[in-house]
Amino acid sequence: MSRAQDSGPDLVPVADLTAFAARALARAGLPDDDAARAAELILRSDLAGADGHGIFRLPQYVRRLRAGGMNATPRIGTVSETSAMAVVDGDNGLGHLVMDHATRLAAEKARVSGAAWIGIRGSNHAGAASVWAAAMLPHDMIGLYLAVGSANHMAPWGGTDLLLSTNPIAVAVPAGEEPPIVVDMATTVAAYGKVKIAAQRGETMPEGWMIDRQGQPLTDPTRSAEGLLVPAGGYKGYALALIFGLLAGTLNDAAFGQDVIDFNNDDVSATNTGQAVLALSLSRFGGVDGFKRRVDLVVRQIRHSARLPGFDQVRVPGENRTALHETRMRDGIPIGSELRASLDALARAVGLQPL
Amino acid sequence: MSRAQDSGPDLVPVADLTAFAARALARAGLPDDDAARAAELILRSDLAGADGHGIFRLPQYVRRLRAGGMNATPRIGTVSETSAMAVVDGDNGLGHLVMDHATRLAAEKARVSGAAWIGIRGSNHAGAASVWAAAMLPHDMIGLYLAVGSANHMAPWGGTDLLLSTNPIAVAVPAGEEPPIVVDMATTVAAYGKVKIAAQRGETMPEGWMIDRQGQPLTDPTRSAEGLLVPAGGYKGYALALIFGLLAGTLNDAAFGQDVIDFNNDDVSATNTGQAVLALSLSRFGGVDGFKRRVDLVVRQIRHSARLPGFDQVRVPGENRTALHETRMRDGIPIGSELRASLDALARAVGLQPL
Repeated sequence: MSRAQDSGPDLVPVADLTAFAARALARAGLPDDDAARAAELILRSDLAGADGHGIFRLPQYVRRLRAGGMNATPRIGTVSETSAMAVVDGDNGLGHLVMDHATRLAAEKARVSGAAWIGIRGSNHAGAASVWAAAMLPHDMIGLYLAVGSANHMAPWGGTDLLLSTNPIAVAVPAGEEPPIVVDMATTVAAYGKVKIAAQRGETMPEGWMIDRQGQPLTDPTRSAEGLLVPAGGYKGYALALIFGLLAGTLNDAAFGQDVIDFNNDDVSATNTGQAVLALSLSRFGGVDGFKRRVDLVVRQIRHSARLPGFDQVRVPGENRTALHETRMRDGIPIGSELRASLDALARAVGLQPL
Repeated sequence: MSRAQDSGPDLVPVADLTAFAARALARAGLPDDDAARAAELILRSDLAGADGHGIFRLPQYVRRLRAGGMNATPRIGTVSETSAMAVVDGDNGLGHLVMDHATRLAAEKARVSGAAWIGIRGSNHAGAASVWAAAMLPHDMIGLYLAVGSANHMAPWGGTDLLLSTNPIAVAVPAGEEPPIVVDMATTVAAYGKVKIAAQRGETMPEGWMIDRQGQPLTDPTRSAEGLLVPAGGYKGYALALIFGLLAGTLNDAAFGQDVIDFNNDDVSATNTGQAVLALSLSRFGGVDGFKRRVDLVVRQIRHSARLPGFDQVRVPGENRTALHETRMRDGIPIGSELRASLDALARAVGLQPL
């Protein structure tokens, strides 16, 4: 791996990043097996192209673990359950380990019941939403994932109280010869990670991402604490953020509304993060192969659509995901200088060799 | 009931409209019991304030039934099922009767399994989406409903082929002392019904509802056939319309993409409409009362939020629904002159006394 000067981010092999993350998490108290598994799950966000949700978050996870805000040795358990649903309590463990447990349980139940809904509480940030929807794909299941975001940066429509997060939805749908369809979207115009990246780079935000408390456009990302993220589609994005919050948070007795802890500004309070995952098993819905053929047909209709002026292609959500995964597995994950510095600082803090 | 001149729409008692709808449907071949039940279900859209989805649609339903495009005596049945899911085939019956069957089945399964997902094919337009989410509320269940819209007026993002409808989502969440939270939204900026109403009234549409095939704003609703509905939130609304279509259509082997029949221009072809409903039983998720209390808290936090300039209140979706239902039950449903004329024509066509 070479460290080129002024020529963009380094590409660091996935194996190196995974090993580094596993060592750092072990230093923060995770048992070795959990640390290795968590590292692999964290890197899935990077492999999916969600650079703000992968290894980028490792220093924060380790900080919370060391500060006592997250439990390094959780007893992840089931609070209530039937053949088709469960409420899982993550015991304040790393979100990735909690969601790994929950998605396995969802697959197990959906294999028998055809449909399964798992609600999660006592969890934490779990990386990119798409990872947990896509976790259903190898089972020939449709996966749907909802989460309460880990900091409130949105107000209800017409209001200024920070009661809502970017509460995302992700859905993954198996296809046949085509790549699976994978949607992963915040209910805000821009995810808060984009604001942070703009601030880090000294860039101005486009109008439409945030407003101030007078309703005026806010384009200086260093002033984001004074502002509100704008919901996608106006009132509709607000309604979706509310509904997803009720389903992923309130239903499971996880935090929502005023109870949400801003995990960027607080390393010690348990966040009681809520999530939810739905699994639908294709084999119970009339068969796997027929479904995949029909999805392929829809994908091709979309891709071959006539185009509006200015568009050189019509995209299907997630279509680049598989190719990006392969590229990054082969060439490595891009690690910019700020992230490199942050990982170096983490290494020093926990007494590890830097990357 | 008085017919005021030039003083806005008449208010017609719900009982009169229900009886009229039942007689018209019976004339179109529905058995009396089904006709009465269907009429009651059709009026629920009017009672929810979804004026473009209730009695307004009756002439079209009757036309389709008489033309053979819809089956007056369907054998609504279950194609495949487990304790927690089913695929229901509506046998091309009126959507309301199919969805009535499906939501009852969802409640029955969710009572035992805690969660139930029912996929529907061979159905038809079933009125306002909110009706079927709200059908779960009396069972102390959360209801979620998805549908493939009955005509494609949207293209994939960047394209111009009409492959997508306004594919709506509706979610109903029980509350305690507060009204239930009910969201009902098309994945387009404006539902197509709003375009039709603008055309009927000779009004211009706001920019942002539709574009033409060059991507330019289209504001003349009489030219809507040349245009494309704009997805809510841009690319995100497109992604949601696609996902909801796959879940409500493709998963159940119902029509989606090019296979969707435009039921406004075709009275004879079976539409094979797809829908889906999810029921989550609160009692299996840690208890009914605790959940409702937590929802009340969230509702009050939202309602009491500080406000942006220009807003005199912060609304919770569905909060006016209960009050409107009571008002309309007491005072009647507003029936404008065009709708009156359309119902009079229907009465003549099937040999009934007019309203």
